Amino acid sequence: MTQNYRITLLSGDGIGPEIMAVAVDVLKAVGKQLDLSFEFKEALMGGVAIDATGEPLPEESLQACRDSDAVLLAAIGGYKWDNLPRHQRPETGLLALRAGLGLFANLRPATILPHLIDASSLKREVVEGVDIMVVRELTGGIYFGQPRGIFETETGEKRGVNTMAYGESEIDRIGRVGFETAKKRQGRLCSVDKANVLDVSQLWRDRITALAADYPEVELSHLYVDNAAMQLVRWPKQFDTIVTGNLFGDILSDAAAMLTGSIGMLPSASLGASGPGVFEPVHGSAPDIAGQDKANPLAQVLSAAMMLRYGLDEPAASDRLDSAVLQVLDWGYRTGDIMSEGMKAVGCREMGDMLLKALSEQG
Amino acid sequence: MTQNYRITLLSGDGIGPEIMAVAVDVLKAVGKQLDLSFEFKEALMGGVAIDATGEPLPEESLQACRDSDAVLLAAIGGYKWDNLPRHQRPETGLLALRAGLGLFANLRPATILPHLIDASSLKREVVEGVDIMVVRELTGGIYFGQPRGIFETETGEKRGVNTMAYGESEIDRIGRVGFETAKKRQGRLCSVDKANVLDVSQLWRDRITALAADYPEVELSHLYVDNAAMQLVRWPKQFDTIVTGNLFGDILSDAAAMLTGSIGMLPSASLGASGPGVFEPVHGSAPDIAGQDKANPLAQVLSAAMMLRYGLDEPAASDRLDSAVLQVLDWGYRTGDIMSEGMKAVGCREMGDMLLKALSEQG
Ligand SMILES: [Mg+2]
Ligand SMILES: [Mg+2]
Repeated sequence: MTQNYRITLLSGDGIGPEIMAVAVDVLKAVGKQLDLSFEFKEALMGGVAIDATGEPLPEESLQACRDSDAVLLAAIGGYKWDNLPRHQRPETGLLALRAGLGLFANLRPATILPHLIDASSLKREVVEGVDIMVVRELTGGIYFGQPRGIFETETGEKRGVNTMAYGESEIDRIGRVGFETAKKRQGRLCSVDKANVLDVSQLWRDRITALAADYPEVELSHLYVDNAAMQLVRWPKQFDTIVTGNLFGDILSDAAAMLTGSIGMLPSASLGASGPGVFEPVHGSAPDIAGQDKANPLAQVLSAAMMLRYGLDEPAASDRLDSAVLQVLDWGYRTGDIMSEGMKAVGCREMGDMLLKALSEQG
Repeated sequence: MTQNYRITLLSGDGIGPEIMAVAVDVLKAVGKQLDLSFEFKEALMGGVAIDATGEPLPEESLQACRDSDAVLLAAIGGYKWDNLPRHQRPETGLLALRAGLGLFANLRPATILPHLIDASSLKREVVEGVDIMVVRELTGGIYFGQPRGIFETETGEKRGVNTMAYGESEIDRIGRVGFETAKKRQGRLCSVDKANVLDVSQLWRDRITALAADYPEVELSHLYVDNAAMQLVRWPKQFDTIVTGNLFGDILSDAAAMLTGSIGMLPSASLGASGPGVFEPVHGSAPDIAGQDKANPLAQVLSAAMMLRYGLDEPAASDRLDSAVLQVLDWGYRTGDIMSEGMKAVGCREMGDMLLKALSEQG
């Protein structure tokens, strides 16, 4: 029996539509191979949505996402919309999407591709084989805590205030995503906090430690956030899966991504307790090269692979997409952003064709 | 006329006394050369103070520090005192010292020494010539903000809470240290915040931007903390001086230090509005090698150099110490922690002798 999945496509702005077209072709091809069928539905988000409706995430788009099994997002934003008031900015659409779907877990892999290892600022022997997954809490912590604002003190001085807060249930649900993710990987989970100084981190550490009893197959360790930043630089191979709060995860996931030297190649996933997740590349909408067939579609294809693995529980199909990306790099095909001497320069569409070829050769 | 300085020495625990002895010898030597006289006074802090008085920072020691022109600290702590209640731990003495002297600015250099460049996990061309100074706010922000604690919500759930807060005057005084430091260096100051999300960071950015008018010779830029972490990994040479809050500074100063690959070589300074600053190596007390003449005294000597530059405003003497350290490394002398093939292994005392020789050769 053919398994059918409803996928909402948010192609967005800039290079979004070009790289999305490649991902859709590749998904269709792998679907045929493994007897999966995808029902794709386009919806508006970001600048295109602002132009059409005045809002970055129209209710109709959010509803389409809610009604689907997974959401594949390309990229949003561009110079054109940068000076709109905050509630009309493309990025506001992203926050509304996360809130609307309850996406509290952000999965950010930092994987070194052997072909692109020279792009890293770190030594080959330090980064070779690095394969880290940062699980970041996405809807709590200091980015959302109350009270917040700029207040006047009794002395008439202004004082800026934000609150870092986590409740036990918030910690538990992201902690479980961390343990489950580690279980699917090498079975090692490092929880990052600042428990030697922060009360909220002490509660975080207590809860994560308590959860460990439910995951005897996962080896749990703890690091303070400053030490974690050092260890990422010193010897990143020591990490498998990292779980941490919103702010620490923001910093560490970006630092980890930069270790690879090819941040334009990285996908991400945002997951909720149930319902559809959102899968998207880490890179932006690159308006300067939009519509010129110059974009690199590989992070979008890797995002589709994450969708298959973490959103639809189709690991075999996900493996095929990951392998196809490695195969086209093996063959030497490179878009401009990752071009190096002796390699074959291709555009976005030709890279897509080569991915289809790679998939078909997998048989 | 001989300039006289009163220096309180907090030799502390572990290797502290050994490396302090070297720094004192070197200070005496440079004092003779430049007609400076140092009146050294030993005081107890850390484990030795706990053993002698029951307290990690006896009032007598704090008073000695207050009565001096600068405080040179070696290292404190060790296994022996790790299980004491929090108020009796050696580290509590450090917090009491910072509070007692009003040390709100922490200066953390991350400098690549050409001799030790291979110790870095980053490529030679990426780290060669890196010379970063991180100015971290030390007595405010989320490590001290109120309210804090673990509270019970109406639903009976525990909730951990910390508060990140800065008032205008707190931002201004650390901001000025940042600008003044940049002025003494290459004149470029990068302020790090998270102003796109946090209100406290928005106030931070507004104040730092306003201060810039008083320092027309300093070029000011701003980075979000997650991007700053990425940029440190990608191309650290873009940075001269960084100024940031307590938590962000904790993370970034450690990450920057690790870029050098030889964190055991790095000094630090903690400064107040007036009164004595505290100067100390970043490394710990290394109880496992204490008393065996194996310790590396160079970070302690570089801390003395920072004391001369930032605490006593004696840049010529500071330059002499910095040069002596480079000279002994040029000659190939290495303690065990930084030993590499073809170099000459020496102990702590012999390294001290070579530093004196290097100083005397400067004439
Ligand atoms: Mg980020
Ligand atoms: Mg630290």
